[in-house]
Amino acid sequence: MDLPKHNHEGKTSRRTFMQQSAMAGAGLALASPLQLFAQSAQDPQKSRNIKTRGYAAKDESGKLRPWEFERRPVGDDDILIDIKYASICHSDIHQMKGHWGQQQYPQVPGHEIVGVVAAIGKNVTKFKVGDRAGVGCMVDSCMECESCTHGEEHFCDRGETVFTYGYPMKSEPTGISQGGYSDKIVVRDHFAVHIPGHISFEEAAPLLCAGITTYSPLMNAQFKVGDQVGVAGIGGLGHMAVKLAVSKGAEVYAFTTSPDKVEDIKSWGAKEVIIVDEAFNNMQSYSKKLDYMICTIPYQFNAAPYISCVKPFGTFTYVGMPEGFELSYNNLALASSRVNLNASLIGGIPETQEVIHYCADNGIRPQIQVIKATEINSAWEKVVNKQARYRYVIDAATF
Amino acid sequence: MDLPKHNHEGKTSRRTFMQQSAMAGAGLALASPLQLFAQSAQDPQKSRNIKTRGYAAKDESGKLRPWEFERRPVGDDDILIDIKYASICHSDIHQMKGHWGQQQYPQVPGHEIVGVVAAIGKNVTKFKVGDRAGVGCMVDSCMECESCTHGEEHFCDRGETVFTYGYPMKSEPTGISQGGYSDKIVVRDHFAVHIPGHISFEEAAPLLCAGITTYSPLMNAQFKVGDQVGVAGIGGLGHMAVKLAVSKGAEVYAFTTSPDKVEDIKSWGAKEVIIVDEAFNNMQSYSKKLDYMICTIPYQFNAAPYISCVKPFGTFTYVGMPEGFELSYNNLALASSRVNLNASLIGGIPETQEVIHYCADNGIRPQIQVIKATEINSAWEKVVNKQARYRYVIDAATF
Ligand SMILES: [Zn+2]
Ligand SMILES: [Zn+2]
Ligand SMILES: [Zn+2]
Ligand SMILES: [Zn+2]
Repeated sequence: MDLPKHNHEGKTSRRTFMQQSAMAGAGLALASPLQLFAQSAQDPQKSRNIKTRGYAAKDESGKLRPWEFERRPVGDDDILIDIKYASICHSDIHQMKGHWGQQQYPQVPGHEIVGVVAAIGKNVTKFKVGDRAGVGCMVDSCMECESCTHGEEHFCDRGETVFTYGYPMKSEPTGISQGGYSDKIVVRDHFAVHIPGHISFEEAAPLLCAGITTYSPLMNAQFKVGDQVGVAGIGGLGHMAVKLAVSKGAEVYAFTTSPDKVEDIKSWGAKEVIIVDEAFNNMQSYSKKLDYMICTIPYQFNAAPYISCVKPFGTFTYVGMPEGFELSYNNLALASSRVNLNASLIGGIPETQEVIHYCADNGIRPQIQVIKATEINSAWEKVVNKQARYRYVIDAATF
Repeated sequence: MDLPKHNHEGKTSRRTFMQQSAMAGAGLALASPLQLFAQSAQDPQKSRNIKTRGYAAKDESGKLRPWEFERRPVGDDDILIDIKYASICHSDIHQMKGHWGQQQYPQVPGHEIVGVVAAIGKNVTKFKVGDRAGVGCMVDSCMECESCTHGEEHFCDRGETVFTYGYPMKSEPTGISQGGYSDKIVVRDHFAVHIPGHISFEEAAPLLCAGITTYSPLMNAQFKVGDQVGVAGIGGLGHMAVKLAVSKGAEVYAFTTSPDKVEDIKSWGAKEVIIVDEAFNNMQSYSKKLDYMICTIPYQFNAAPYISCVKPFGTFTYVGMPEGFELSYNNLALASSRVNLNASLIGGIPETQEVIHYCADNGIRPQIQVIKATEINSAWEKVVNKQARYRYVIDAATF
């Protein structure tokens, strides 16, 4: 049995022993106090909070600082992951700055998390210690409703989806879920996925949000080989959308405001790259050209010129989440386009596992830059200023 | 040959005679001046502007006043209609008040127009004098592009669709198209439809906008018999949507903020009527219930509670046009719903003809109140205050 590498726990305290005894209930009569104590000493994660180091937002400034905090003990259905890498998503920045509503601080962001399983609860069969594992945008749900039992845990009918950071969670010592910019995470086994050996940890991390968030709507769109698929906004999500759509046989049209991204985008197999100027001049010749468009622009923008590039009765999917989640659109332009508009949020756990296997097996890799924890704040500024190329991945050994 | 009933024209003037002679060109040598003169005397509509009486907005006040103006002469492809009835659409009010952009005044609103053909141009075969005819939301387009030649004249690819009032039109003496709150209209034959004898003029009028605007998206939705179809907003458009969806076999759920409409709505065959309160309490039990929803609410509103009534991957169509055409929505709610959102604008001419035949043949009639021209201003106030039950139809004999 592999022992966890970062064991900050001491021996089981008298108090913890008493708690365990009480919880064991009727079963206790069959076990000697010594046995219980010995078991607890071997697996302190299962009885005590897990000391964790990470980077947290302490306020809405958008600046993160080192923070030591505790995670819950490893429950019967939980696994403990020693985090190897966590990557930076624009959503982390939006949420920490309070763009999506008031936050509880300190809060640790990060929902693209990979590492090695360091401990498992007694009911866990999905993972064994030493397995490579990943965690994405959610860490719990009711697990009983129709959505949850059909692989759509992010749409839990009871509204009990717990997203990876900032969501109320009684079992967590800080009262909220805490994300992946840290060295360890405890998560219900169902919400972790396997990372196969033929993809590196650092390249797998961005798949947990950027990968699944673009893969899910692209699959749902059911475009055919040779169809013309547009991708608007070529950042962390958009660059994955280009690569995924190309690999699925689409003719990809990439729309970006950054002329210096053209060469990269073409190297990923895009058919054309359209540089969008403020007057949308370059877009006019693409009117009604596309079978489908996925838009990853993570701020308020004028959607009409993009929507007009889609054929009548085609679909435009919005996967960016702007400030306040509010988007406005011109209803007359939408009517004239005859385009169907929808929005997509991540994907369920089975599909998250699917995109990881798909990318691992088909050589689809995000284009990443590995950074140290001390570089997080400057990386965030670059993300906001569209300077990321294309995903920053934090080495968790530096927390 | 039936002569037009409202002939305010005198004899052909010397000036008109000279113009006609010049236009006749080479053919002139074969016709004596006397013959030409005689022909013009018989059909003064073809050489002179048509004097018309109507009600016009003179400013953004939303008040209409009587106005005498001229329409263009009846061209070779035109028909002259003696208007019998014109009904009141909420769009008339929005546009006259400048909610959709600055307007040229005086402007005559009205795009639900029925009457009798009083004269036809020499190329016209679609109508003969004496035919019952209707005009809806548009009066011209390029007639050559792919959209125009495929029955989607309202989406003219060259952007040359001329809507029934307030659109620049060089041939019109006032410089813009002028609508149906008047006693006569000259329109290109293609843009008029036949009104069969088994539906009354006054009941046919509202079909020209309210009918086609709801029929077109309902047909496009391709719901099946027994599907659960929601209709939000039960005014002029919404009440037609209920009747049409019921007649096509849907189980109709009507959403209204007016408790006193319940009895009417049930009498039209709706399965359930949901009274929407400000907190949307009554809507929660309809979450994910509907296969399709059509929303006719003609102002800015919180769409999320309505959208949430549609099943995942169902469609929500918005046919109201709010001020500025701008609608905002919560992107997170849209993502969570997994609903496809689209918007619809009227319908093409062939489909407009179709809905009129469909309603005439199947006993589908709008619920109307016939008013005099002098009652237009108070009727408009009632429309704005949701007091219309459900379409005001103006008797054109009172202009
Ligand atoms: Zn993300
Ligand atoms: Zn659930
Ligand atoms: Zn109308
Ligand atoms: Zn056209």
